[in-house]
Amino acid sequence: MPSSATSDNGFLPTDIVAAAGRLDGVAVRTPILEAHLLNARIGGRLLIKAEPLQHTGSFKFRGAYNRISQIPDEERGHGVVAYSSGNHAQGVAAAARLFGIPATIIMPADAPAIKRANTEAYGATVITYDRYREVRETIGERLAAETGATLVRPYDDHGIMAGQGTVGLEATQQLDAAPDAVLCCCGGGGLIAGVSTAVKAAWPDCPVYAVEPAGFDDTARSLAAGAIVPNDGSARSICDALLAAQPGNLTFAVNRQTLAGGLVVTDDEVRHAMAIAFETLKLVVEPGGAVALAAALSGKIETADRTILIIASGGNADPALFAEALEAGARR
Amino acid sequence: MPSSATSDNGFLPTDIVAAAGRLDGVAVRTPILEAHLLNARIGGRLLIKAEPLQHTGSFKFRGAYNRISQIPDEERGHGVVAYSSGNHAQGVAAAARLFGIPATIIMPADAPAIKRANTEAYGATVITYDRYREVRETIGERLAAETGATLVRPYDDHGIMAGQGTVGLEATQQLDAAPDAVLCCCGGGGLIAGVSTAVKAAWPDCPVYAVEPAGFDDTARSLAAGAIVPNDGSARSICDALLAAQPGNLTFAVNRQTLAGGLVVTDDEVRHAMAIAFETLKLVVEPGGAVALAAALSGKIETADRTILIIASGGNADPALFAEALEAGARR
Repeated sequence: MPSSATSDNGFLPTDIVAAAGRLDGVAVRTPILEAHLLNARIGGRLLIKAEPLQHTGSFKFRGAYNRISQIPDEERGHGVVAYSSGNHAQGVAAAARLFGIPATIIMPADAPAIKRANTEAYGATVITYDRYREVRETIGERLAAETGATLVRPYDDHGIMAGQGTVGLEATQQLDAAPDAVLCCCGGGGLIAGVSTAVKAAWPDCPVYAVEPAGFDDTARSLAAGAIVPNDGSARSICDALLAAQPGNLTFAVNRQTLAGGLVVTDDEVRHAMAIAFETLKLVVEPGGAVALAAALSGKIETADRTILIIASGGNADPALFAEALEAGARR
Repeated sequence: MPSSATSDNGFLPTDIVAAAGRLDGVAVRTPILEAHLLNARIGGRLLIKAEPLQHTGSFKFRGAYNRISQIPDEERGHGVVAYSSGNHAQGVAAAARLFGIPATIIMPADAPAIKRANTEAYGATVITYDRYREVRETIGERLAAETGATLVRPYDDHGIMAGQGTVGLEATQQLDAAPDAVLCCCGGGGLIAGVSTAVKAAWPDCPVYAVEPAGFDDTARSLAAGAIVPNDGSARSICDALLAAQPGNLTFAVNRQTLAGGLVVTDDEVRHAMAIAFETLKLVVEPGGAVALAAALSGKIETADRTILIIASGGNADPALFAEALEAGARR
């Protein structure tokens, strides 16, 4: 992991620049989308960094590739192991495939068949566990110890955070001027830690807000409290990518310094945002990927006559859930 | 209209290069998308030129802007008129807005409210007609004569064809090498006339195929007959953007020289392609925009170990129809 005596949190903008070098020609330099009909809705400009168009349909490929590239050669041949039923699984599987190394993904036995099939289609081996009786972290650490494989954590890792941060670095290069604000989804906080670090390096005065689903606003509350505060575990949300129990230690150490605050959106606001992205951007955005757009569309931040950069983080939406969002959107 | 004594059909690759110059910084240089999970389905490579990400959600903006830019200054102030209930309407409206000139769009009185609202949102005036009792071409020509506005035809116009051709020109610049074939949708034939002209200029040996919905394969049959053959008018299709009665005169004069042939797909194959684009590319593609992908996915052309460039022309899909396609896709 990169570190520096000159940084409070041990995570530096230069880590992200280095990650961008490793990802050059490997990851998709995703476009920033803009639509007149979307801008007209809010009376300002929304610029959408479109990570659904990234390999594997989400930003997770970036961090996985960057992290795997930093495993010493003599260890990398033993492969990698990760626990995830979602975007991190596909990101790690696809990145491992490019390095020609084995990937083992630990998934709950009741994960949707399509997620398992997609992960296997990237060449990974899937191992299932009973989510009610077993702890995936324990299985992952045991597997890593037994096989010599490297455990690739989903967010609390500087190599992961630096890879995800290339989303923000690219945006600073793609735009001619700083936006008035940046909105980014937040689960464990890896993406926004990287994005906010890159954004602050380029545009020190630009506020970056975390956006979370209602009931999973642990980062918003932790920022307000100045210390990590977990969720109480009782909430449910369609934003399956953003259900971390609490901020990561490494991610929060960054985010407490870089973020202006946290915004919260409901599942209905997320469904509406998915329908609007369909209609105006022609982009498939999954629930967790749509929270930042939802915050802008539902007035959680001032948008009139302002330019807001929105990170749309992924597009791996279940077809039935997506169809339901379109119907809900049409009713509003 | 550009013309040249050295060209059989009066339409030249240099017309497209000139259009690209006018569209530089105005139109979106749409990305070419690729997905491992899509390639794995066909055992080859599919490269998707993503025009749903163009302004107004389809390639039509390109031709409209290029055509309007070529109206002499002293005439342009009188505005433009067009007849369309679909993508051409929005393309003309958005382009006219950029030139600050009035646009009048002639739409059937029973056109979907959302299409009218979107066209008006770009600042156009919508005039309706009774599609069972009036002829839109006649109304358009009368309006143009009365007001001095320029009639912007949907496809049979070299300025339109040159603008649409920038889709192909960009693709030849974006790819390192010629693909084994290019598949492009075909209604009146404006897009494919431009695309095929640009493709043949860069890659003379690369075959370009028109793809049409079953029952609307007038270009395929006209190519086979060596002369324009209309559809018999009895067929129906969900591909609302591709229902021209017969090839245009100017477009067919080009297409008979540039195209390798025509492929035909069913509505079910189109729905399946829309669902696959959703799942693997995270791109919203409307029925008419999905026919080329449908042809590749349904084995209308050899794809194994080959690289096929697919033009996905637009994404203005009705939400209910899109939801239905996702359900149909899930059943296959």
